[in-house]
Amino acid sequence: MPDPMLERKLSFLDELDALKRVLRVNLLQDGSRRENTAEHSWHMAVMAVVLSDYAPPGMDILRALKMALVHDVVEIDAGDTYAFDDKAYLDKEHREQLAADRLFKLLPQPLDRELRALWDDFEEGLSPEARFINALDRLSPFQQHLGNEGKTWKEKSMSVSKLLTRIGSVKDDCPSLWPYMEEKIAEAVKKGWLDPR
Amino acid sequence: MPDPMLERKLSFLDELDALKRVLRVNLLQDGSRRENTAEHSWHMAVMAVVLSDYAPPGMDILRALKMALVHDVVEIDAGDTYAFDDKAYLDKEHREQLAADRLFKLLPQPLDRELRALWDDFEEGLSPEARFINALDRLSPFQQHLGNEGKTWKEKSMSVSKLLTRIGSVKDDCPSLWPYMEEKIAEAVKKGWLDPR
Repeated sequence: MPDPMLERKLSFLDELDALKRVLRVNLLQDGSRRENTAEHSWHMAVMAVVLSDYAPPGMDILRALKMALVHDVVEIDAGDTYAFDDKAYLDKEHREQLAADRLFKLLPQPLDRELRALWDDFEEGLSPEARFINALDRLSPFQQHLGNEGKTWKEKSMSVSKLLTRIGSVKDDCPSLWPYMEEKIAEAVKKGWLDPR
Repeated sequence: MPDPMLERKLSFLDELDALKRVLRVNLLQDGSRRENTAEHSWHMAVMAVVLSDYAPPGMDILRALKMALVHDVVEIDAGDTYAFDDKAYLDKEHREQLAADRLFKLLPQPLDRELRALWDDFEEGLSPEARFINALDRLSPFQQHLGNEGKTWKEKSMSVSKLLTRIGSVKDDCPSLWPYMEEKIAEAVKKGWLDPR
């Protein structure tokens, strides 16, 4: 017998398969190819489990995990916007809002409202979960750049000041992770992977 | 100042990047390429969130999500074992136990014990979370085969009886998902995607 509610949920899940075909600028840690947004989202969720001790006070790990899983699904329609592409950032919010409107509405209530609220919260960046997941969203590519010996940084002639416009937020969002990142930035400068300016 | 505990956790997370390079036999829903195990694990975790109403009684969604995220990490060492490869299945358990021994021990306690226990539980398949995640592990490629119009099934001349040796467990593990799968199997036979034997 047909189960329309189940079929609707499966249609949403089928639609999400497309996230595996959205490519980010970052390379995998071994530098072999560009990372896609679905596998990035998996890695973020595992990071949330493993690094939960470093989260801001009051962080709810279940809420954070769900947020990590859906934080980038809008890229199915809106594409990945490279963190340092100022032009693409001009209409990023508009494109992503349209995508969120379309995608989450594929789900029946109350799931539509629940996942949309998680995504809105991530974008706003104020709750303990949003601060934690936003910090991990900086730490994840940071680890990849270190893993492939600054390959992408060198190709883009990345400077410390430019990098800090993107990842400096970790200092406030998740202060316990910041000393590590600061130390690794200094090391990357010494190794010539980052321009010290 | 160095934080050895954080560095150890990050080493584990860096190691997990390799799961993005483990290829499964299944294709993406659009048939464009083979799926990798990291993006599969992300999709499984999102499925767990969206389909939690269909889980066996007593399922703890946080535990199920963590299980979905780590259920296949052993494939980093052991590789993906195709569900219908009888020869590879002979030493699958041995290979995966060795991989679990190495990988989870990269983590400090109590995380090592927590994640290893989740993986052992998934393999045993008895808890409500393990039954749910095992059922989703069948449903996920099932949806992909339907999405690409039975392409892999046809290439492998898959029969209903052979398919049921793999996915028939869903009937007991997660009975509320089974009527849908049974219906779709019958449709796939009618369309010539599955051999009716």
